[in-house]
Amino acid sequence: MARSSAGLSALTRAMAVLDAFTVENPYLSLTELARRTGLPLSSAHGIVGELTAHDLLERMADRSYRLGNRLWELGTRTPGALGLREIALPHLQALHAQVRQHVQLTVRSGLDVLVLERLSARDAVVNATIVGGRIELQHSSSGLVLLAEAGEDVLAGVLRRGLHPLTETSIRDETKLRTVLERTRRHGFAVADGYIYPGSRGIAVAVRGAEDAVVGAVSLVVPNDDAPVEDHVRRLKHTAAAIAESLRRSYLPPGHPRALPGGRYRRMVNSSQPSMVYLQHALSAAPEVADGAGAGER
Amino acid sequence: MARSSAGLSALTRAMAVLDAFTVENPYLSLTELARRTGLPLSSAHGIVGELTAHDLLERMADRSYRLGNRLWELGTRTPGALGLREIALPHLQALHAQVRQHVQLTVRSGLDVLVLERLSARDAVVNATIVGGRIELQHSSSGLVLLAEAGEDVLAGVLRRGLHPLTETSIRDETKLRTVLERTRRHGFAVADGYIYPGSRGIAVAVRGAEDAVVGAVSLVVPNDDAPVEDHVRRLKHTAAAIAESLRRSYLPPGHPRALPGGRYRRMVNSSQPSMVYLQHALSAAPEVADGAGAGER
Repeated sequence: MARSSAGLSALTRAMAVLDAFTVENPYLSLTELARRTGLPLSSAHGIVGELTAHDLLERMADRSYRLGNRLWELGTRTPGALGLREIALPHLQALHAQVRQHVQLTVRSGLDVLVLERLSARDAVVNATIVGGRIELQHSSSGLVLLAEAGEDVLAGVLRRGLHPLTETSIRDETKLRTVLERTRRHGFAVADGYIYPGSRGIAVAVRGAEDAVVGAVSLVVPNDDAPVEDHVRRLKHTAAAIAESLRRSYLPPGHPRALPGGRYRRMVNSSQPSMVYLQHALSAAPEVADGAGAGER
Repeated sequence: MARSSAGLSALTRAMAVLDAFTVENPYLSLTELARRTGLPLSSAHGIVGELTAHDLLERMADRSYRLGNRLWELGTRTPGALGLREIALPHLQALHAQVRQHVQLTVRSGLDVLVLERLSARDAVVNATIVGGRIELQHSSSGLVLLAEAGEDVLAGVLRRGLHPLTETSIRDETKLRTVLERTRRHGFAVADGYIYPGSRGIAVAVRGAEDAVVGAVSLVVPNDDAPVEDHVRRLKHTAAAIAESLRRSYLPPGHPRALPGGRYRRMVNSSQPSMVYLQHALSAAPEVADGAGAGER
């Protein structure tokens, strides 16, 4: 791709501008964008203009910019994130109806947990997660589940980054972390008692997709009291199994007796059964996807 | 931005590749990508490599590609889509608990409705919407509400594109459309009886944000029978008012007695009250956003 005098490709500069927007700073002026990206103002001006023309940025009445809905729209087509979230949502809602605290769906992104969905209740305990936000793997019960299933290289990366304990009970050395991961693998769930905030406890289990690969984790954030966790673990395992079954049925060949209706839409869409049958037929004019493609959802 | 020999900027070519992925075709090979974008294979190869390096694309084990979770992550920072969706979600859940059919949150995107969220039930009626999907404004109750509030230029665009009736009852001429829009403005809600599918009825009301601007619509898709719509309209207006109130309180200056907790996070995050208080304090090290920026959420 074409490179500017600074040696950065156009795409790299565009990504630097998009990355300057955060949950904390969703509105930025051109001057702030130039400062945060280190790009010359004239260069930032050109990139911002082009990003705005593609609806990747939106210009506000006060001349500040924010990320455009076009990005959200592209994001809705990612099978690994929104596809998983769509298929999991009804199961998360059922769990949330039983446990009126926080219910979360996460995936691993490098050395972090990426939060795909969170259902909360007004009076639920403190929870640091933001949908689309990241938490270091070793801090959260979801992260421990995902780390327990990842390779030794991911653990090495976490140790190299440092454990950054946040509370009295946070994991603060390699021996403890390895013990916790071993226990997580043996029991099939992880508990994080006040690792991020003293009054909150995370409990998580893995979600497996096609070919039994771990595709994410489902977790609860509940009060950090001495209550036994068994009931919550049982509910979580039931939820994870239900999500796994929906994922498997989404990836079965069309026509298979256990395949969900909806044809190629099954992999991205969760709606009522009648809607899925409708989508399968009404929209069947579009060319079919080769069935081999992306047979595992990771 | 630097241009290739074909005269297209790097960003335009990158967007063409990203746009080739759809809900129907979430996995594409390099050859398919070149064919769909019209880019030479070598050019497509270079762009795909760079997009993959930025995690905007993911390469699967079978060498096909899909959109990367990085896009989803960027999408979660768009105040106009996910910010609105986050603030609205608990109110949508409350409505869904009362009406176990489809509950939807939408915004206008050009001449289409863009679906931000849909909560469904297994046995709910046929509904053609996909989260992140688009429907022409004149076909859906949400679209009629948003069109009724848009300028004459948007209506002119819809008429120029053509009305494309899908069923016996779909709107098929300008006079009928103008009558329906006038009625929508007068009563504050729209009903679409079988416009997309004969057995389904959409009912929608507008959602207003700061400064009373329409920022989206909330709708129900229910059986298209002769049942009176008044109860549904009352519930929808209650939901829209609750979302509007949460939006307003999200945009009040920090410290205002009616401001929601969560400081600058209020605009993007909906969690329990204790979590929002925690976020406000625990994360207050980051620089504050100028309060004037983006004071209206559209």
